Amino acid sequence: MNHAVTIDNDAFQHECGVCGVFGHEEAANLTYLGLYALQHRGQEAAGVTSCDGTLFHTHRGMGRVADVFGPDDISRLKGRHAIGHVRYSTSGASVERNAQPLVIDYQHGGLGMAHNGNLVNANQLREDLERQGSIFQTEMDTEVIIHLVARAQGASVEERLANALREVRGAYTLVALTESRMVGARDPLGFRPLVLGEIDGAYVLASETCALDLIGADLVRDVEPGEMVVITPEGVRSHFPFEPQARRMCVFEYMYFARPDSTLDGINVYNARKAIGRELAREHPVEADVVVPVPDSGVAAAMGYAEESGLPMELGLIRNHYVGRTFIEPKQAIRHFGVKVKLNAVREILKGKRVILVDDSIVRGTTSAKIVGMVKAAGAEEVHMRISAPPTIGPCHYGIDTPDREQLIAANYTQEEIRASLGCETLAYLSLEGLYRGMGGREPGYCDACFSDNYPVAPEEKTPQMSLLREETG
Amino acid sequence: MNHAVTIDNDAFQHECGVCGVFGHEEAANLTYLGLYALQHRGQEAAGVTSCDGTLFHTHRGMGRVADVFGPDDISRLKGRHAIGHVRYSTSGASVERNAQPLVIDYQHGGLGMAHNGNLVNANQLREDLERQGSIFQTEMDTEVIIHLVARAQGASVEERLANALREVRGAYTLVALTESRMVGARDPLGFRPLVLGEIDGAYVLASETCALDLIGADLVRDVEPGEMVVITPEGVRSHFPFEPQARRMCVFEYMYFARPDSTLDGINVYNARKAIGRELAREHPVEADVVVPVPDSGVAAAMGYAEESGLPMELGLIRNHYVGRTFIEPKQAIRHFGVKVKLNAVREILKGKRVILVDDSIVRGTTSAKIVGMVKAAGAEEVHMRISAPPTIGPCHYGIDTPDREQLIAANYTQEEIRASLGCETLAYLSLEGLYRGMGGREPGYCDACFSDNYPVAPEEKTPQMSLLREETG
Amino acid sequence: MNHAVTIDNDAFQHECGVCGVFGHEEAANLTYLGLYALQHRGQEAAGVTSCDGTLFHTHRGMGRVADVFGPDDISRLKGRHAIGHVRYSTSGASVERNAQPLVIDYQHGGLGMAHNGNLVNANQLREDLERQGSIFQTEMDTEVIIHLVARAQGASVEERLANALREVRGAYTLVALTESRMVGARDPLGFRPLVLGEIDGAYVLASETCALDLIGADLVRDVEPGEMVVITPEGVRSHFPFEPQARRMCVFEYMYFARPDSTLDGINVYNARKAIGRELAREHPVEADVVVPVPDSGVAAAMGYAEESGLPMELGLIRNHYVGRTFIEPKQAIRHFGVKVKLNAVREILKGKRVILVDDSIVRGTTSAKIVGMVKAAGAEEVHMRISAPPTIGPCHYGIDTPDREQLIAANYTQEEIRASLGCETLAYLSLEGLYRGMGGREPGYCDACFSDNYPVAPEEKTPQMSLLREETG
Amino acid sequence: MNHAVTIDNDAFQHECGVCGVFGHEEAANLTYLGLYALQHRGQEAAGVTSCDGTLFHTHRGMGRVADVFGPDDISRLKGRHAIGHVRYSTSGASVERNAQPLVIDYQHGGLGMAHNGNLVNANQLREDLERQGSIFQTEMDTEVIIHLVARAQGASVEERLANALREVRGAYTLVALTESRMVGARDPLGFRPLVLGEIDGAYVLASETCALDLIGADLVRDVEPGEMVVITPEGVRSHFPFEPQARRMCVFEYMYFARPDSTLDGINVYNARKAIGRELAREHPVEADVVVPVPDSGVAAAMGYAEESGLPMELGLIRNHYVGRTFIEPKQAIRHFGVKVKLNAVREILKGKRVILVDDSIVRGTTSAKIVGMVKAAGAEEVHMRISAPPTIGPCHYGIDTPDREQLIAANYTQEEIRASLGCETLAYLSLEGLYRGMGGREPGYCDACFSDNYPVAPEEKTPQMSLLREETG
Repeated sequence: MNHAVTIDNDAFQHECGVCGVFGHEEAANLTYLGLYALQHRGQEAAGVTSCDGTLFHTHRGMGRVADVFGPDDISRLKGRHAIGHVRYSTSGASVERNAQPLVIDYQHGGLGMAHNGNLVNANQLREDLERQGSIFQTEMDTEVIIHLVARAQGASVEERLANALREVRGAYTLVALTESRMVGARDPLGFRPLVLGEIDGAYVLASETCALDLIGADLVRDVEPGEMVVITPEGVRSHFPFEPQARRMCVFEYMYFARPDSTLDGINVYNARKAIGRELAREHPVEADVVVPVPDSGVAAAMGYAEESGLPMELGLIRNHYVGRTFIEPKQAIRHFGVKVKLNAVREILKGKRVILVDDSIVRGTTSAKIVGMVKAAGAEEVHMRISAPPTIGPCHYGIDTPDREQLIAANYTQEEIRASLGCETLAYLSLEGLYRGMGGREPGYCDACFSDNYPVAPEEKTPQMSLLREETG
Repeated sequence: MNHAVTIDNDAFQHECGVCGVFGHEEAANLTYLGLYALQHRGQEAAGVTSCDGTLFHTHRGMGRVADVFGPDDISRLKGRHAIGHVRYSTSGASVERNAQPLVIDYQHGGLGMAHNGNLVNANQLREDLERQGSIFQTEMDTEVIIHLVARAQGASVEERLANALREVRGAYTLVALTESRMVGARDPLGFRPLVLGEIDGAYVLASETCALDLIGADLVRDVEPGEMVVITPEGVRSHFPFEPQARRMCVFEYMYFARPDSTLDGINVYNARKAIGRELAREHPVEADVVVPVPDSGVAAAMGYAEESGLPMELGLIRNHYVGRTFIEPKQAIRHFGVKVKLNAVREILKGKRVILVDDSIVRGTTSAKIVGMVKAAGAEEVHMRISAPPTIGPCHYGIDTPDREQLIAANYTQEEIRASLGCETLAYLSLEGLYRGMGGREPGYCDACFSDNYPVAPEEKTPQMSLLREETG
Repeated sequence: MNHAVTIDNDAFQHECGVCGVFGHEEAANLTYLGLYALQHRGQEAAGVTSCDGTLFHTHRGMGRVADVFGPDDISRLKGRHAIGHVRYSTSGASVERNAQPLVIDYQHGGLGMAHNGNLVNANQLREDLERQGSIFQTEMDTEVIIHLVARAQGASVEERLANALREVRGAYTLVALTESRMVGARDPLGFRPLVLGEIDGAYVLASETCALDLIGADLVRDVEPGEMVVITPEGVRSHFPFEPQARRMCVFEYMYFARPDSTLDGINVYNARKAIGRELAREHPVEADVVVPVPDSGVAAAMGYAEESGLPMELGLIRNHYVGRTFIEPKQAIRHFGVKVKLNAVREILKGKRVILVDDSIVRGTTSAKIVGMVKAAGAEEVHMRISAPPTIGPCHYGIDTPDREQLIAANYTQEEIRASLGCETLAYLSLEGLYRGMGGREPGYCDACFSDNYPVAPEEKTPQMSLLREETG
Repeated sequence: MNHAVTIDNDAFQHECGVCGVFGHEEAANLTYLGLYALQHRGQEAAGVTSCDGTLFHTHRGMGRVADVFGPDDISRLKGRHAIGHVRYSTSGASVERNAQPLVIDYQHGGLGMAHNGNLVNANQLREDLERQGSIFQTEMDTEVIIHLVARAQGASVEERLANALREVRGAYTLVALTESRMVGARDPLGFRPLVLGEIDGAYVLASETCALDLIGADLVRDVEPGEMVVITPEGVRSHFPFEPQARRMCVFEYMYFARPDSTLDGINVYNARKAIGRELAREHPVEADVVVPVPDSGVAAAMGYAEESGLPMELGLIRNHYVGRTFIEPKQAIRHFGVKVKLNAVREILKGKRVILVDDSIVRGTTSAKIVGMVKAAGAEEVHMRISAPPTIGPCHYGIDTPDREQLIAANYTQEEIRASLGCETLAYLSLEGLYRGMGGREPGYCDACFSDNYPVAPEEKTPQMSLLREETG
């Protein structure tokens, strides 16, 4: 039998996206479309929960939004309120059990929740809850939060949610739905984005503004770090139930995860990337003939680099638009196969040229080496790799699926060693200072732990076994 | 667009089946085959959970066993222990969320559970648990039991399970799996069957003996009402943690649900059915030419009736072996369509004959009327309907999906009214006394609430809303 | 990875069924239901072609009728005329290319055709046609016939079809559809059945009467051997374009293939089987306690045997109603596995008994040996195998998928050798004379080549390679 | 029920792609990967036929290459030779019957064929063939060609193919496979591209060089217009069996269909597009702030426009990378919905700006109007539409699925009317002269019928009914 290979995605994995609509005839349909616009934040699973004021209706499945939902599914999601979730794609165990939103019955009625982020004290909380008699049916942090809510004091769901969230540490952006209200919350440091929109008198919550754009909703404002917005038929109320803290929005959202057409906390992603590319050109100029982006995430930075350097930009690497997740590879291996199914090097552009390759990150280094190899095989005389970010030296503990530190090439090798392993003539990373110059300054405050090793919330000690439900892969 | 119709199943719906294997290299595969033999107990969903001593692996899905499981799924279910479940088919909402086994992490590790039955105090327990902070993600009684276990006192899982089960009332037959043991339990009245078998030194639990037969396991014995068997690598220990009570095995298991090749609590199902048919002939003889069973469940009783009456039995109704669940019916309705896709009347046998039709029950009466109509349309001169059971006057509260009392024809109409609505010449039901003569006596004790209105465990008051997760159906 | 095994079907394989409706608003829907009733004649593939007077619409697929067709598919099959086909299941290569009906454009317009049977000179005709420039896209005899029609002389499709059929030898029952008429044809010897029915002024053609019964059509009459019926809006015209020949209806249709509720050429299948069973009892009585049928095809004969012998019949082998095509077998083989997934032996009936097992055929002998083994393992003291047919000594060349002669146990071993290999105490086959006594006489004429080696149409010499399109199977 | 809408693709539809590998251990796997690289040429259906020297093996299906083929499918495609095909996506009837390659048995053995193009005399040929007794099972031109081959004179397949192709008029690029050779042919005018490559001693044929790149094959050369290459184990032989004619390669391949990394007849697609964009800037400058491409096909031309004009290029329209084919649209329509699911306008880039929008074509005008609307809604002060091609005034008769002339906006309205309907400030198209300046001259000869109404091969008169097999669409 021939062998199907999953194309190794040597990059930061995507994470999660959330969306919710309150008070609209077509709440589920709009939520579905919002998730569709947030598909880049997670392609592994998708789900929507609606509420018709009494009953909750849920449809979840593995795969992309357009594959998980059919017209019948949307029709069954009755009610004027809905929340939804897309989950990131991990290379390993992916099981339907872990799809969101999570929906429960508890003493105060029904509660649905969708969550983007990662708690650093989830295991401790889970053990505490189990000691009190809680059971866990999934591996998700969301289930920890929802248990805390079920046991929390408080006259309203927002009070109970606030009391629950006071016990957790880490990154969370969540939307919750009861029979009568929708709540959006962002952790005090604001690691992950959340915006509030409005359409036809209904309110919308979404991870990014691009979801508002698709459904034709107007942006009202960003939900603030530490803010909880409570949406009822009477309107939006804002709470700040937590101790104020310095803002620590994930800087990598701008550089990689978010869609370039989104504007997060007032800064447009595309513009930020381009400005960062300009800084990269200022910091690390090199004599060359052409600037070539590694598509797609490197394009804006390459445009900035080219503008600043005065060099022409050319699309010397062309992306295949029909990439699936698995391929049937011949036994007799094809050179650079894993990269070739995604990218092709254009000989007519690269031949005999001194090429500046602009990419946004080097994770394990395997893909970058293949790309450099492909560009050289296409005739480039020199390859100068320019990374529009500082070296990635630490894993993320706040919701992004990164390799362990041992697998991060920049955490284990010198820049010269990396350059040699990539096989390029020069290699340069943008400095952290350069990055923030591109972002328009260090304010209003970012998390850059993956570059600086400066973790704003201390990660939990690793416990040997988080969950017996965990599936081994293999 | 043409319309697909779900064939109305005017019969008692099937219920559930459980299976488990402890201590065998191929535990999941044998459990899968056991479920396959128990498929008649539930075609809506199937699932298997295995444990490799540390991790639990689960595969569940909607549909029949053979459709839910592929070779890869079995391969992933690693470990020497496994439990499984098939769920009955309801006409209404069927959602993957409610598939079993249920598997949890709790303070004492992992726990998987598969359950057949119905608790009559589930709503009350659920409310109590929610008041203590429990959350519910499904509508299943199994989740109630598992919450009680998670909160129960006790040094071992069997103690905790016993303490939990002391709080529940109603029917339950369950198999549970931890990292190191498998537990089988049957409620004190023993509504639902459970047998213990042995194969290659491994132990097997199953709802019926036919599951043992398929995998080549030997029957050790029935698990007794009120018994809990705990299976460890050291062997089987038996506990009777509950107050002893009079045995109340569901008599309808023998008459309808169980496979005729199964032997439950020492009585073979096929033999029982045939003996009941003989009693029916003694009680309700009629001058006629031929005895015709309504296949398949009426065949054994008809054989008994024919033997006792001295009349020939003929297969005057032929079953289509390829019945699916839905059919695309023409707009211009076909007479008796819903029954015709399942049965055909053989004119050559029925024409000009006085026919005794033997069936095991009349539920709403709609199907029986169509069958009588079909038999008459095929030329029968007289149709004498003989039911190998007393009139069904009460719904089941112990795990069988029956219509409400308002829909049970025998609870609302006289026998003569029913006869008239069926359009047959005579109609007779077996008496309860006749039924028990056929069963070999009233001992060792049965539940016959659906015939006698004598409910051994009082059903809970109906609460207006059991679960917000409940799906309405269109 | 665990291994899925296809359950070996050591029996004559089913063949094909055809159906057609002319002049009905819901032609495609009725044809679909007719195929559903004919599902026992083929489970591998199903298809329907409709015509709206101008365009032809076709839906075909691999699998059972209920799986191949959804409401949308039926809706798309527009028009007042339709024909359909179910294809038998072979153990080997099954490819969608070979699904029927076959539909073509040719010089006289459109033509759809569905065919049941086997031509003995197909290879020769194919070669001749190819020499004239014909191309073949399938391996089906139907394509040969349709090519002959396309090249035939004649003013009408029925003339062209008659001219084409004069060139072929072998068994064929076919329904054909043009823009304005439906044609049904049966070869001069009438190997395969075909009936004409009527519903709401529309005409129906079908392989068996059970298809008429399901859709509520009235039987008009059997189409005669050598007859061609031409159905137009004006009504039915009958043609006998071939040299009259002695009728040779396949006797095995009555004994195995046809549904017991069907009546073929005036003889009801169930009644024939039962009468054959009585003859078997007269020819081969034996002292025993109980008669047990091998379900399902052996039931009617066993009933006849029991009646004639005065012995009780018991259902000592219970069939699993949920048999799929593949099973995941444990590595550690289960005894009699292949048979056990289909049948279970009831110990309570068989234990200590002298059992007469009644079956309709022994093909390779492997399944029969497993059944005898199972019955003995369930405690039977003696097993007396009685076959309600003569020994099968020759393969079928007229449309039934039989093993080669080398694999037919009765063609290669003595009766005593067979008995010994089955492990039963006695074995007896019905004589050919007994068979015909049961059938009511040798008239009106049957093909019994598989029992008598007397082939009414000489089979073609085997050519080394029939088709380059043929798929090898692994 | 909610309604699924197919996103209207107001653009030229893709067409077809072919690939073949001769003499390689993994012929089918390499062909599959080649098709994967050619996926942009057709997403509706894919198929591969292999030959092991005797038997042909085929796997075809509806959908994208990665969805149609699994490892098992590849494994079954045995043999050292294979050909494959991807088919374009039409909005209408798409049926499996029309998938390629087409494989037949005929008098000279087996023959597989995959074809890209459109014959203008197909209907006439079809009628002629039918008159000679040919039957047609599909609607494909390929079947016409293959019938001609089956009836052609000639000692070898290449002679027969040449004789057959002398009868056809129009566009064809095809690969054919027999038991012992692979043939590639390109029509005398060379409408569609075909390249010859080499890998590990095996030969490869493919529509574009990007297929060679992915599998690591070296480009040997383009197959010439009117050339037939015959590949045998001895190597490649070249024939020019047709009357030489002026070359007429489809210029739109460069502008729209081909992948930018492909090089067709020596001209790199990306470079051509960029040069055309420069010409556009020279012909139609306008005072503005920013150049914005309509992704993806407009990007290269926009880069050229920006370079030439000295204006900055910004990615003001962001493409959603996860576009499926259908979406569930709310009842309350969303403005610009059909375009919004594919593109989003970035307010931060567009607001207050005078924007030059660069696109490659305007077909019906509906999509362009939505894009202009979206850009204005995002705050653009002025929108200047620049099309990197002349107005599209005629449909393609050579293999591209274009709307009828009545639907082509430029064929029915003045430029000013189009501008007004789009709602932009100015609109300008590149002139045909400008286009050819960008292409480097009118030589070596192109077909530009869609721009010039100058059809190099006269299209056939439309016949009222091409095929009775044609499916109407709802």
